[in-house]
Amino acid sequence: MPPERVVVVVVYDGFALLDLAGPADVFNAASLLGPDRYRLIVASPDGAPVRSTSGVSVTPDASLSTVARGRVDTLMVVGGLGVQEFIGHGRAAPDLRAISRRARRTTSVCTGALALAAAGLLDGFRATTHWASCERLAAAHPDVEVLPDRIYVHDRDRWTSAGVTAAIDLSLALVQEDCGPSVAHTVAGWAARRPARPVSSRFRDGCPTTSGRTCRSRSWRRGPG
Amino acid sequence: MPPERVVVVVVYDGFALLDLAGPADVFNAASLLGPDRYRLIVASPDGAPVRSTSGVSVTPDASLSTVARGRVDTLMVVGGLGVQEFIGHGRAAPDLRAISRRARRTTSVCTGALALAAAGLLDGFRATTHWASCERLAAAHPDVEVLPDRIYVHDRDRWTSAGVTAAIDLSLALVQEDCGPSVAHTVAGWAARRPARPVSSRFRDGCPTTSGRTCRSRSWRRGPG
Repeated sequence: MPPERVVVVVVYDGFALLDLAGPADVFNAASLLGPDRYRLIVASPDGAPVRSTSGVSVTPDASLSTVARGRVDTLMVVGGLGVQEFIGHGRAAPDLRAISRRARRTTSVCTGALALAAAGLLDGFRATTHWASCERLAAAHPDVEVLPDRIYVHDRDRWTSAGVTAAIDLSLALVQEDCGPSVAHTVAGWAARRPARPVSSRFRDGCPTTSGRTCRSRSWRRGPG
Repeated sequence: MPPERVVVVVVYDGFALLDLAGPADVFNAASLLGPDRYRLIVASPDGAPVRSTSGVSVTPDASLSTVARGRVDTLMVVGGLGVQEFIGHGRAAPDLRAISRRARRTTSVCTGALALAAAGLLDGFRATTHWASCERLAAAHPDVEVLPDRIYVHDRDRWTSAGVTAAIDLSLALVQEDCGPSVAHTVAGWAARRPARPVSSRFRDGCPTTSGRTCRSRSWRRGPG
């Protein structure tokens, strides 16, 4: 029997639906088209239904505290406008740390990196997030080395991605790590997502950040010069 | 006040979550970043919760028969492995025809085109669908001119897209039609989805169809030669 890989995707009120849908559909396609089987568990803080920023209501499979006691291969925290409120939830950080301890790898999509960082899970790691939140991540967490010009960043057992559609690129990269490039290529073809785009991207060129400045094109942590 | 554009997205058991999430998040971003306001209504056959092929449970806002009596700007039918069962639902075709009659434009994502075609809504139109279903669409509906090598096809008030991630390209094109290229460009930047890819795509090159043959690279209806 192929291994079953449990992917815990963490959602909350005000999450971005694409951040969940990209990984969900990519891992499902990989299960159908490749040798491994992925089992998706959608988890919200208390297991109650959540509403995406786009107004779509999703019923999760479990609460964070429940999945913190179960088997986990991959932890993935999604982004969205509600991430700050999620971080403020008293149990969020300890629950994420507990799940991460059980997981083979800890990942985030878009501003989900802010939640991982708030739980201390990115300290000492290179990471990225939505281009409009790179400054915020770097300013709030000086021990995180923020790379603002990447579709995704892989540093040891941490994987973080840029915004929204970058969730699909990240998920394809995770499938490639697990199942090899041939399966990832087949899944990308199924999803009409070829050719792959380079990890170092300029998709946000000219887009102002939330602070009105344009993101710099190198590591935040290393400073100017 | 800017116009409010009601987008009815039709889902069913076995729909592809990305087909819903792409349009939902693009129209939501357009509402935040552009002059028009989009209101998304997720509709299932009887208004009951539905489960995506990837196992995510979504609670819709309404039933098809309810939205068939309301205001509609854009009808969008999503795809998924459950589309055949959805088409077999006795009320699906008449409900889709009733909603389409009220809509300014009728659209589909991925194999959602099979549902539009089954309701007779693509007869006499050029259309596309997921590359693996182009043969099926053309064989079952000889009055539909199937273009298999397109990200999306726009023919009068019908818009149909290729599979999965092409939903995002289609939604950006609809936003561009409504709000102009500048807003669409801003939304694409927010979604880390630039540069735009060409409408005529070769993303499925070398991918076999469900019948084991490779899709031909021109209109199905016009036949060989």
